Amino acid sequence: MVTKTLVENILKTSIKEIPEDVRQHGKKSLLNWMGVAIGASSHPSVDMVLALKEDTQSAEQVSIFGRTEKVDLLLGSLINGMSSHIFDYDDTHLDTIHHPSGPVAPVVFALAEKMDLPGEKVLHAFILGCEAELRIANAVYPSHYQLGYHITSSTGVFGAAVAAGILLELSEEQMIWALGIAGTQSFGLREMFGTMTKPFHPGKAAQNGLMAALLAKRNFTSSTEVLEAKRGFANVLAPEHDLSKVNVHWGEQWELLKNAFKPYACGIVLHPSIDACIALGKQVKAEEVERIELVVHPYVLELTGKSAPPTGLAGKFSIYHTGAVAFLEGDAGEGQYADSKVKDPAIVDFRTKIKPRVDETVKEERVIATAFLKDGREIEHIVKNATGSIENPMTDEDLVRKFKKLTYPIIGAEQANGLIDAINEIQQLDSLTSLIAFTKAAKQ
Amino acid sequence: MVTKTLVENILKTSIKEIPEDVRQHGKKSLLNWMGVAIGASSHPSVDMVLALKEDTQSAEQVSIFGRTEKVDLLLGSLINGMSSHIFDYDDTHLDTIHHPSGPVAPVVFALAEKMDLPGEKVLHAFILGCEAELRIANAVYPSHYQLGYHITSSTGVFGAAVAAGILLELSEEQMIWALGIAGTQSFGLREMFGTMTKPFHPGKAAQNGLMAALLAKRNFTSSTEVLEAKRGFANVLAPEHDLSKVNVHWGEQWELLKNAFKPYACGIVLHPSIDACIALGKQVKAEEVERIELVVHPYVLELTGKSAPPTGLAGKFSIYHTGAVAFLEGDAGEGQYADSKVKDPAIVDFRTKIKPRVDETVKEERVIATAFLKDGREIEHIVKNATGSIENPMTDEDLVRKFKKLTYPIIGAEQANGLIDAINEIQQLDSLTSLIAFTKAAKQ
Repeated sequence: MVTKTLVENILKTSIKEIPEDVRQHGKKSLLNWMGVAIGASSHPSVDMVLALKEDTQSAEQVSIFGRTEKVDLLLGSLINGMSSHIFDYDDTHLDTIHHPSGPVAPVVFALAEKMDLPGEKVLHAFILGCEAELRIANAVYPSHYQLGYHITSSTGVFGAAVAAGILLELSEEQMIWALGIAGTQSFGLREMFGTMTKPFHPGKAAQNGLMAALLAKRNFTSSTEVLEAKRGFANVLAPEHDLSKVNVHWGEQWELLKNAFKPYACGIVLHPSIDACIALGKQVKAEEVERIELVVHPYVLELTGKSAPPTGLAGKFSIYHTGAVAFLEGDAGEGQYADSKVKDPAIVDFRTKIKPRVDETVKEERVIATAFLKDGREIEHIVKNATGSIENPMTDEDLVRKFKKLTYPIIGAEQANGLIDAINEIQQLDSLTSLIAFTKAAKQ
Repeated sequence: MVTKTLVENILKTSIKEIPEDVRQHGKKSLLNWMGVAIGASSHPSVDMVLALKEDTQSAEQVSIFGRTEKVDLLLGSLINGMSSHIFDYDDTHLDTIHHPSGPVAPVVFALAEKMDLPGEKVLHAFILGCEAELRIANAVYPSHYQLGYHITSSTGVFGAAVAAGILLELSEEQMIWALGIAGTQSFGLREMFGTMTKPFHPGKAAQNGLMAALLAKRNFTSSTEVLEAKRGFANVLAPEHDLSKVNVHWGEQWELLKNAFKPYACGIVLHPSIDACIALGKQVKAEEVERIELVVHPYVLELTGKSAPPTGLAGKFSIYHTGAVAFLEGDAGEGQYADSKVKDPAIVDFRTKIKPRVDETVKEERVIATAFLKDGREIEHIVKNATGSIENPMTDEDLVRKFKKLTYPIIGAEQANGLIDAINEIQQLDSLTSLIAFTKAAKQ
């Protein structure tokens, strides 16, 4: 009954029943998502996927944010979803290391553009899509993630299907099938981290979930208990799971409220170490340092243990590179992950001084950092809640600053500011035509 | 090194190095595949997926076999791949319960039509695509299947990528990436069996694998060891596996030679029981029978245990319905799985007399059937190798008869016969234009 109950919960929750703080957090999530999607839109990997437009002679139905091309709605969901995860700078549900907007936002914008839907519907579908995927993620985390799944795509496909299903006005039976068609397509190996295939995951989950809802709308049949069946999603993809978490306290607790935004352009697990290395870098000079010890949760090193990253993208999975740039440059923005940075002799030299050590008793959101200096001194810096965590969140001003930094170079200040206002007012918009027009690359 | 070695093996194997018997079996596989794809092309589920043409305004690049519509090559791969599995009448690699042509054939035909490729290349790519997916399947079977994966799609995505990669002339590095992009998309839950989502699996695997190769051609990067990495395909999706099976005796042993063709329109696990029930039906009358006991391997009942199938499609997963029609009608063709048949009072009544019993010592390809008659007599019929198994295969004439039965009503005798000749001569064709023209639905 878990799948059916989830669908009943989704279908009974109108936009009016979504609390104001959740709606606000939904809008922040959309703003943050749009910023990172536009910010990465000129990455070479986007050109590669856009080549599918030529291969398939794709129709010009929906916009690629931050560019001028249009493609069909399935390809558009793939590309915008991928783009938003390229910088590893998107949002994170910290309980499950899930990036909820990636698989959901591209779908709601694609359908909104194609069907000319009002903003309130779009926000409604977005919030419930995120809520569904995060609750499913809660039910299978950490076992599913430990097994090796990129939880953002593997559970995100459900979120995409739910969001699309709401906008396509699926019946209860159709929505249950949509979850079946989506869930059987759950995919994404963590082995892909550090390659272009990682950001491909949320994009493809968006595309798969949207296709699932489009098929269900035509009464394409599927399992009616994809989540709980003996050979269903949870049993096959998560050695341990607790499906009661899918529907518990529905409407009272909102997982989307736990969605955090990143001040740094890499995986959230590195953020405490970045905060610490920035702080240490302000206190001592590079030449004084013998080594910097970072005591972290085992996950951190498991995910970011690349000692000699060959590319900037791989640098995001290197605590050594990341610690070095944070210490030396006082930041870990997209600029610190340029290909040139992982070859910079000063950074390459300093990264050998970064000495992570795992300790299971250190929580994932913390780090105990100690700079051991050549003169024998030791400077300790403990981070309990990294900048951007729920306890220590980015402010609204921080978010807007991040958005501008990512989008100004691509769509220009005027459009970027228009886009900020449009997303803030999305519930009042009868159509997203002007909002989407703001996302178009400015003429150079 | 497993992934790299597989790619090296694939790229060093020219069509000339593929033995004549393997090429012949490849052509038979293509003929059988084309027959079942055309045969099911007017099924309602095909219309539902074809609606995506309208949703996405898909370009008219490649043909949907047995119909008149054309769609883009990615959508075409999905639809033709799905169509071929709808009747559950396609080929089977008995060692792994894998249907190798489903994910591979639609891809090679789509690329052949779009790029106007010669038949020899198409056969070459098809054979190596099948060989790759079957060897990967060998490495993870049975653990992967037991866990709950539909092995046809979950490993078929590799076959689709390999076949497309050959036709797109990928470099070694690109082919390795293509396997990475494909493998991370491995999917398909056995929970979907009995619904339209089951045949969707090989079609979607075809589409995913083709997309993987198209992206790799543009140098979209991925893992270089998707099969063997710690969090790669085998470790994540198969609790037990033996990756040495992927490359063992490459070029000396051919898995494709173990590909069998079905005389009956349902899962291969039921075929021994069908043979037995047909044989018993010839010996006694329905009203004489108290019950028919079928002693089978546990898999058989696990896969086909539906006692009261609501639809003809679900009837394919019911040993009760299947045993009843085989006994009463002497066949288990597509006609025996019409929706009307699962509601036919005589069949519904007789299916309660079918009594399967599992016995782990009975091999999957066997059955010990006993008709217990009301007068106390017992008639036993043991099937060691069902019709259509490798040991007791369909003859070439059987295959042609099956092809004609499936295609005559849809494309007409003249085109069907032309298609048989074209597939037999595929290696000599400079272009598949006329072959593909034969697949078009005849004017009614």
